[in-house]
Amino acid sequence: MTESERKRLAIVVEGGTIDKLYCAFILASTAVAMDMEAHLYFTFWGLQMLVKGAMEKAGLPVTYKHLERNMRKNLERMKYPTPYEMLQRLKQSNLFKIYACSPSMEMFGIKRKDLIPEVEQIVGAATFLEIAAKADVTLFI
Amino acid sequence: MTESERKRLAIVVEGGTIDKLYCAFILASTAVAMDMEAHLYFTFWGLQMLVKGAMEKAGLPVTYKHLERNMRKNLERMKYPTPYEMLQRLKQSNLFKIYACSPSMEMFGIKRKDLIPEVEQIVGAATFLEIAAKADVTLFI
Amino acid sequence: MTESERKRLAIVVEGGTIDKLYCAFILASTAVAMDMEAHLYFTFWGLQMLVKGAMEKAGLPVTYKHLERNMRKNLERMKYPTPYEMLQRLKQSNLFKIYACSPSMEMFGIKRKDLIPEVEQIVGAATFLEIAAKADVTLFI
Repeated sequence: MTESERKRLAIVVEGGTIDKLYCAFILASTAVAMDMEAHLYFTFWGLQMLVKGAMEKAGLPVTYKHLERNMRKNLERMKYPTPYEMLQRLKQSNLFKIYACSPSMEMFGIKRKDLIPEVEQIVGAATFLEIAAKADVTLFI
Repeated sequence: MTESERKRLAIVVEGGTIDKLYCAFILASTAVAMDMEAHLYFTFWGLQMLVKGAMEKAGLPVTYKHLERNMRKNLERMKYPTPYEMLQRLKQSNLFKIYACSPSMEMFGIKRKDLIPEVEQIVGAATFLEIAAKADVTLFI
Repeated sequence: MTESERKRLAIVVEGGTIDKLYCAFILASTAVAMDMEAHLYFTFWGLQMLVKGAMEKAGLPVTYKHLERNMRKNLERMKYPTPYEMLQRLKQSNLFKIYACSPSMEMFGIKRKDLIPEVEQIVGAATFLEIAAKADVTLFI
């Protein structure tokens, strides 16, 4: 399939909780398995999840906190991959791209060396909008 | 209007609070009234709202909890339908489709028999992405 | 560029916290700078941010509250504009449009005179869906 024929998914990952990470990575993994491109742009609390060690400590939003124990127990029973494991698998596909939002980095005092090595590019919102304008599905998670 | 000419709205309902349910159902009802298709895919906390009796107990996110009393009072005065009543009305249109996310069901130990009868299909993210890729408006709520 | 050639961004602003306001206004400002149209439809907690004086008091969601002090300190150091300042700058472009959701106003007992003067139109979801169906990027924030 040529690049121009291929369908594209573009996601802004704004949330920094485990449910939002799973939503983003499950949708991206599914897209890649369907031979779609998946572009994930991490901003705000999502950007903070790209700091080394942060994704492993992600929890649930306060509103749903009481459901965390049940969810973690089921994930363990299902031997479900962690968000970071999902990201590492996604990185093996050249259909997957991950971007860190540069203004968010400045807003939270985060440097390039603080980020996990899987991050490809540090870019602003203009780059995301250019990618999203050519996407078939765009979501803000 | 033929199916291929008709506009399509595709929504991921991830939130499990009354504001998110209203947003999804108000947009879907409006779409259907405009002769658009409306496809709602319920995942995570949204999926939990499809369990029998859950939608009636939905509240507000913690961040906005202090506004709940005022909102409920106004909804009552307006004789506004509840989210579940809106869903039941939507089900009368063949332009409306509702899907339960199968991985979320496993993650939270929810069985088909636990779900309200309005749910049509239990599907994975691939089915949603196929629907969304042909949609004119896609939203993650 | 003619109107029909121009790319379009359509955003539902549902959140009423400072992070969501920044996301919406940064994306809209970037779009306008790229000669794209930016249409922002404020509903629910977003709508409440259009009440006079509300945007200046916006805080962070409870889940991320502990990061507020660091964020505010960095924003000050960066001399970053406030959300309301960003909105006022956006209003100088005729590519930017802002809409208040009429059902949300009734739900929260908010009158036209309560809103900031920057609001152009008070409309329902049908108007938003018509705009969004012709957009290149649609997001729910």
